[in-house]
Amino acid sequence: MEAPYEDALAELMISYHELNGTVIDELTEEPSPLEFMRYAARNTPFVVRGAALDWEATQTWSVDYLKAVLGDDPVNIAVTPAGNADAPTPYTHPDGTTSLVFAKPHEEDQPFSSFLDYLIDQEKHRPQRAPAEVRYAQTQNDNLRNEYSLLYPQVPRTIPWARVALGARDADAVNLWIGGARSVTALHRDNYENVYVQIRGRKHFVLLPPACVAAVNEVELRPGRYRRRRGKAEKRDGDGDGEPEPEPEPEPEPEPQVGPDLDPDLDLELELEDGPSVPFAIWDPDKPDVNATRYSRLAQPMRVTLNPGDMLYLPCMWYHKVSQSSSPEGVCIAVNYWYDMEFSGALYPLTTFVRTVAGKTK
Amino acid sequence: MEAPYEDALAELMISYHELNGTVIDELTEEPSPLEFMRYAARNTPFVVRGAALDWEATQTWSVDYLKAVLGDDPVNIAVTPAGNADAPTPYTHPDGTTSLVFAKPHEEDQPFSSFLDYLIDQEKHRPQRAPAEVRYAQTQNDNLRNEYSLLYPQVPRTIPWARVALGARDADAVNLWIGGARSVTALHRDNYENVYVQIRGRKHFVLLPPACVAAVNEVELRPGRYRRRRGKAEKRDGDGDGEPEPEPEPEPEPEPQVGPDLDPDLDLELELEDGPSVPFAIWDPDKPDVNATRYSRLAQPMRVTLNPGDMLYLPCMWYHKVSQSSSPEGVCIAVNYWYDMEFSGALYPLTTFVRTVAGKTK
Repeated sequence: MEAPYEDALAELMISYHELNGTVIDELTEEPSPLEFMRYAARNTPFVVRGAALDWEATQTWSVDYLKAVLGDDPVNIAVTPAGNADAPTPYTHPDGTTSLVFAKPHEEDQPFSSFLDYLIDQEKHRPQRAPAEVRYAQTQNDNLRNEYSLLYPQVPRTIPWARVALGARDADAVNLWIGGARSVTALHRDNYENVYVQIRGRKHFVLLPPACVAAVNEVELRPGRYRRRRGKAEKRDGDGDGEPEPEPEPEPEPEPQVGPDLDPDLDLELELEDGPSVPFAIWDPDKPDVNATRYSRLAQPMRVTLNPGDMLYLPCMWYHKVSQSSSPEGVCIAVNYWYDMEFSGALYPLTTFVRTVAGKTK
Repeated sequence: MEAPYEDALAELMISYHELNGTVIDELTEEPSPLEFMRYAARNTPFVVRGAALDWEATQTWSVDYLKAVLGDDPVNIAVTPAGNADAPTPYTHPDGTTSLVFAKPHEEDQPFSSFLDYLIDQEKHRPQRAPAEVRYAQTQNDNLRNEYSLLYPQVPRTIPWARVALGARDADAVNLWIGGARSVTALHRDNYENVYVQIRGRKHFVLLPPACVAAVNEVELRPGRYRRRRGKAEKRDGDGDGEPEPEPEPEPEPEPQVGPDLDPDLDLELELEDGPSVPFAIWDPDKPDVNATRYSRLAQPMRVTLNPGDMLYLPCMWYHKVSQSSSPEGVCIAVNYWYDMEFSGALYPLTTFVRTVAGKTK
């Protein structure tokens, strides 16, 4: 890489921050469609404090209420050893070498009430660092209009100012998120315009604009997935032919390599998956010296905490890392609305260009 | 320059055109502020056919009317040998070498009626290629609210949908343009949101988005200006000290080097000016093989002709070349409204980044 291009990427980040500041706009009431469109045009986030305080969901979604509505209905739960669903995670290969993979969670159906009991017990009665598997309802597949449709009538069908401004017929997806303080969503970006609404507990967002792509160290990661341990003969299918491989000579089973506090009795194991690699940011703005690029120090992440009833406009293609705190009842509940982003116009191709140039500087 | 960056610039232009097409949107009525804001957000032009047909200006600005209102009031006129105000123009140095300079017009005050008589005579009674100086009222300094303020009441003070959408108090400038078919505005860009309105005659726009910056061959040009010839002792002040240089040995006076059809008796001479160089596009989409870059062939210029009463939204930072045809009376008259563009947000820094990278490929 030649210096001039580095300079251009650095200038971009510096000028972006100079022109935009690093403090998120806080509105005291919801914007009009036109006011919102000015933010969408600038690809600039804002938070509206208390905008959803009068939502039926905000007023009614106690643990008892949710259990009464959903009971033992099966719900899809993401299970990980340390709250790291869809996150870059060290994987130890059979030969002892280690590399980062994109670790998807183990997914399984659990009765809703049991899931909530486990979550609350872990949140309220277990030490924060006590090792145990982490469960998170986070399917992001329009689950509030499907799996959790009994709860959907308690939130607005759409966010009117977003729908009108974006010329959308409806939200592309409405997602419900139920988890606890152990779950962290790793820094990533979505090709959606996103309105995120906190119902219970708090979410802590770290935000970076697309112009900072050179800071986040986007690399191609092999996909992996946590699985509950099974017999060796069943799980060893390294050549992907659907047949178990011959049992190898006994060797020490590699431990999952996620963090220092894993439960040695956890029955979750990270396995490589076939399929295309996943371009993913491996820089964590909360550990700025790890996996940094030469541009990471120029990034000025924007931080905002959503309290119950707060609403965040998270513009398309913004990198975001999300941590959470649970409510006094021991849950963190949020709803988000995804609207299709605009791929025509200048923003998407220009952002892709910066991403391409940043990728070539490695 | 390494190939990967060329590829990225080429990919940008290709994907921009794929996502946006190359045909301008035609609206049959003016947009609402929100509809306009969607275009501004995409940095995408449109034309509204007939939007200004009911303007008082469109209905009243005959040659007789204009002469009756403005009479012999002095107005600032740009004078060039070939209609090339503010254009890259070959300059022959005293040593015989030639280079492109950014040629500003000679400016002088003329009685309005005389200016119009000259223009109309040239348009209606002289062969198109007959050499003679070209005059154009094109001051672009908010002249309709100043120099031509007697005409200002006949146009709307502002374009309501643009003002409301952009959150502007008022237009930053309202400009009147009066010229003929010999004047061409060279490909350039402005850091303004622009609403351009045709009153008499026609304007022929060639448009290129900011994503095509690598195609337009932006280079640093020395500034120059046309001057009416004066005595040699007066005009030769090559060292810029304000004092004429000693009379040099007689040598052939270099001819202005603009085109093949210059009047040998023209009294206009291009002189270099002191001052910073001007970054300017030297590629002409109508002569695609001249001054081309390796990306020029990927640019797909958008062309649109404005007829009387038509309105064009020309988004900020779009390259535009403008030619014109005169009305049956022999004039081409237009009005444009400049609104401040948005420098915060993503578009300006991302566009600057592409421009920087494109500049480094040379």
